[in-house]
Amino acid sequence: MEFDPAAAFDAERFRREGRAVIDWLADYWQSLPEKPVLSQVEPDGVRSQLPTHAPEQPESLDAVLADIDRIIVPGLTHWQHPGFFGYFPANASSPSILGELLSAGLGVQGMLWATSPACTELETHTLDWLRELLGLPERFASHAPAAAPGTHGGGVIQDSASSGLLCTLVAARERATALATNARGVQQGDRPLVVYASVDAHSSVEKGAMIAGLGRDWVRRIPTNARGEMDAAALARTMDDDARAGRVPCFVVATVGTTACGGIDPVPGIATAARRHGAWLHVDAAWAGAAAVCPEYRGPIVAGAEQADSWGFNPHKWLLVNFDCHALWVADRGPLIRALATRPEYLRNRATETGGVIDYSDWQVPLGRRFRALKLWMTLRMIGAEPLRQRIRDHVNWAAEFAGWLQADPRFELLREPSLSLVTFALRAGDEATAALQESVNRSGSAFLSHARVAGRHALRLAIGGTLTDRETVANAWDLVRTRAG
Amino acid sequence: MEFDPAAAFDAERFRREGRAVIDWLADYWQSLPEKPVLSQVEPDGVRSQLPTHAPEQPESLDAVLADIDRIIVPGLTHWQHPGFFGYFPANASSPSILGELLSAGLGVQGMLWATSPACTELETHTLDWLRELLGLPERFASHAPAAAPGTHGGGVIQDSASSGLLCTLVAARERATALATNARGVQQGDRPLVVYASVDAHSSVEKGAMIAGLGRDWVRRIPTNARGEMDAAALARTMDDDARAGRVPCFVVATVGTTACGGIDPVPGIATAARRHGAWLHVDAAWAGAAAVCPEYRGPIVAGAEQADSWGFNPHKWLLVNFDCHALWVADRGPLIRALATRPEYLRNRATETGGVIDYSDWQVPLGRRFRALKLWMTLRMIGAEPLRQRIRDHVNWAAEFAGWLQADPRFELLREPSLSLVTFALRAGDEATAALQESVNRSGSAFLSHARVAGRHALRLAIGGTLTDRETVANAWDLVRTRAG
Repeated sequence: MEFDPAAAFDAERFRREGRAVIDWLADYWQSLPEKPVLSQVEPDGVRSQLPTHAPEQPESLDAVLADIDRIIVPGLTHWQHPGFFGYFPANASSPSILGELLSAGLGVQGMLWATSPACTELETHTLDWLRELLGLPERFASHAPAAAPGTHGGGVIQDSASSGLLCTLVAARERATALATNARGVQQGDRPLVVYASVDAHSSVEKGAMIAGLGRDWVRRIPTNARGEMDAAALARTMDDDARAGRVPCFVVATVGTTACGGIDPVPGIATAARRHGAWLHVDAAWAGAAAVCPEYRGPIVAGAEQADSWGFNPHKWLLVNFDCHALWVADRGPLIRALATRPEYLRNRATETGGVIDYSDWQVPLGRRFRALKLWMTLRMIGAEPLRQRIRDHVNWAAEFAGWLQADPRFELLREPSLSLVTFALRAGDEATAALQESVNRSGSAFLSHARVAGRHALRLAIGGTLTDRETVANAWDLVRTRAG
Repeated sequence: MEFDPAAAFDAERFRREGRAVIDWLADYWQSLPEKPVLSQVEPDGVRSQLPTHAPEQPESLDAVLADIDRIIVPGLTHWQHPGFFGYFPANASSPSILGELLSAGLGVQGMLWATSPACTELETHTLDWLRELLGLPERFASHAPAAAPGTHGGGVIQDSASSGLLCTLVAARERATALATNARGVQQGDRPLVVYASVDAHSSVEKGAMIAGLGRDWVRRIPTNARGEMDAAALARTMDDDARAGRVPCFVVATVGTTACGGIDPVPGIATAARRHGAWLHVDAAWAGAAAVCPEYRGPIVAGAEQADSWGFNPHKWLLVNFDCHALWVADRGPLIRALATRPEYLRNRATETGGVIDYSDWQVPLGRRFRALKLWMTLRMIGAEPLRQRIRDHVNWAAEFAGWLQADPRFELLREPSLSLVTFALRAGDEATAALQESVNRSGSAFLSHARVAGRHALRLAIGGTLTDRETVANAWDLVRTRAG
């Protein structure tokens, strides 16, 4: 007996089951405030409840949803919980979830322009919108009204800031060696290629250098000042020293909003040093970049961007687009494409050969790609730019309030002035007490804080940005922190 | 005025709008047979219809869906159309779309076990299910009933075969150099690390070697026989020559199901050569791997897998899981994790430190990750193993039928015996006539064929695997090909 395609997709069944899943999710979001933020399961607690073998015959959606309720949900740390203040947020929204649903349902694969032109063109265009909203320079635009002739910038969506950074690092490597490394491989011998980032830069810098074959030892970690900002003079000296010794300054990462405490590197000074050595300047604004939609926060965030070779941030962190959505812009798409393009016969097509279209598979590690632009486009349209700005402002204001409460309580120490919506603090009683407080708060189930090392201290981080988080949630978190501090 | 979180997520509005999107998608799938498979738009045809600026104020879902109908859909190449026979399929299904919806709606980020234990454990377990369904060796299992003590295999979901290959290549590179390249960088000097793959292997091998800093010139392209299968003796000779010359055979890719014609490399012979030189053996079964769910096709697909270091295939190609879903197994997770792990302070947590859990960010390029296991798990459960097998069988049978029709028509030449569900053919009248036939078929709108270079010829590829494709669609495609051949 043949397989019935309706078992894979039947429109009427999809309508029925789709509604059930939509309703299940609506219920889930409504129940979030009552759930513990942090999962309470022990290792193997989920797996041990699952059957050993895959089923031979189909099971119902009801059976699956029942297992999700019983086995999966207790094993989740609820990133969309209003009391999730850990790491940086990965906030979803109704428009972005529906955008992801549409992308999955359309099931197109946009590796080439020709394999779904709308998938490519909506992405190009939405990133032009976003570039404008952030006030980034026109050189990053694919289509800019007043772009200088001969500029060939553009934007692309990747899964994460780590992947975006790896791609730009490879582009930098190839630009520095006139494509010789792509052909003959890296030669970290007498004249190694060197990478620069602050001591507080994200772990993806080190990981990128490892994957791209440059090596962790050739990542110079430049010191930061008391606000967690890179010392641009120290960078310049280090680059000069390397150049004098015959090494090749290749790639500089400026972090706009460090993970530990939200430090914003002085990009203009960094750009001057990078330019003197012809090094690629990448700005990693993964979290803080979103705040550039507000003119009043934009200044330090986009400062120096006009001298950067690439600039990336994550709409999935603080702009209501569900994970994954990293927006990456390059000032010149040429080096990126030359570094990453392959063109086997089976992908050749007329549109590519005319040179008038973008094939985004040449801008990323994987060949295939989802239609991620839909969720970004739908979020921008269905939320609107002005409400997105107001939302960021609220979070920044609440962070300032929280910091004020902390400062008024002599048991607490604010380790840094709040950076946008991130508050970094500790108990004066020391690391052990601070770690115990973190444990106690997180065990309560109503708030989750992660930590970092700041000023040599075990620092608690309150990163405001959750979709459901409101001022009251933040006030409750302070009450919790205050009362558990003992 | 503060931003109202309900503008980002309101449960009642989500129920209403979610239904509208579900219904829109059901209508879309029902309309697919009437749509032209291949988009008919010209470059810039989509973008030029979009407003120049993002909206300041929110727009309705209705407005968005109207634009999708008017602007986006005409710009799509419909990968889910029953007449889509190009490249390899990227087939979606109702359970997988709902799984992706759940993943987006839950919005958890599984970079660490601790950041959502169920996200990690369901992935580990579902890949154990899938390993068993494919008949892959127990050494690839994370939890195997009869696993030999000291084995530490396991599976992970990545976005694509390209990314999976890159990760295993980096693991191979680090294993070959005892982690020296991660520290000090690649030194493709006197003793370069060498990569091996057949001339018909996927472009991701070259791209991986470029990104990982080994260089395209150090990828040896081993010849294939008339069936597109790697010549294992030629591989052995090439590896021996390299070793004798002081070079380091590092990474061998065996392709199980080449893109051009579905050739299946002789993995056991390749494994012998790889083992002699201590090189990492990666099996790229991106498309054909799915067919191993059927015992009658399994033999050549999993042959030699017990000697492979890693083995990957794409459930998103031919197993009804929507893109993206690449399943990658390693026989020993140690080298992969040692090659890719970073452990900054802000990710430290008790579960990781006990060593008893998997942190999947150490198995991939990006740090963050979606809950992709849901869609794989839901597809396996809601379709069931036996129907999945029957579906593969149908496609293989229809490919054989199509090949029979071709062979009965003297104008056509079957360039290879069908490989599973892939038929590779040409017109005897020559490349120009074949390309013209392709153009004519694709312009018709009712079927889409892509091409490759096979036996020096412009070859048309009929890859059967669409979700809605049935025997009648295949028969109609033959009618179309036959009548348009002139």
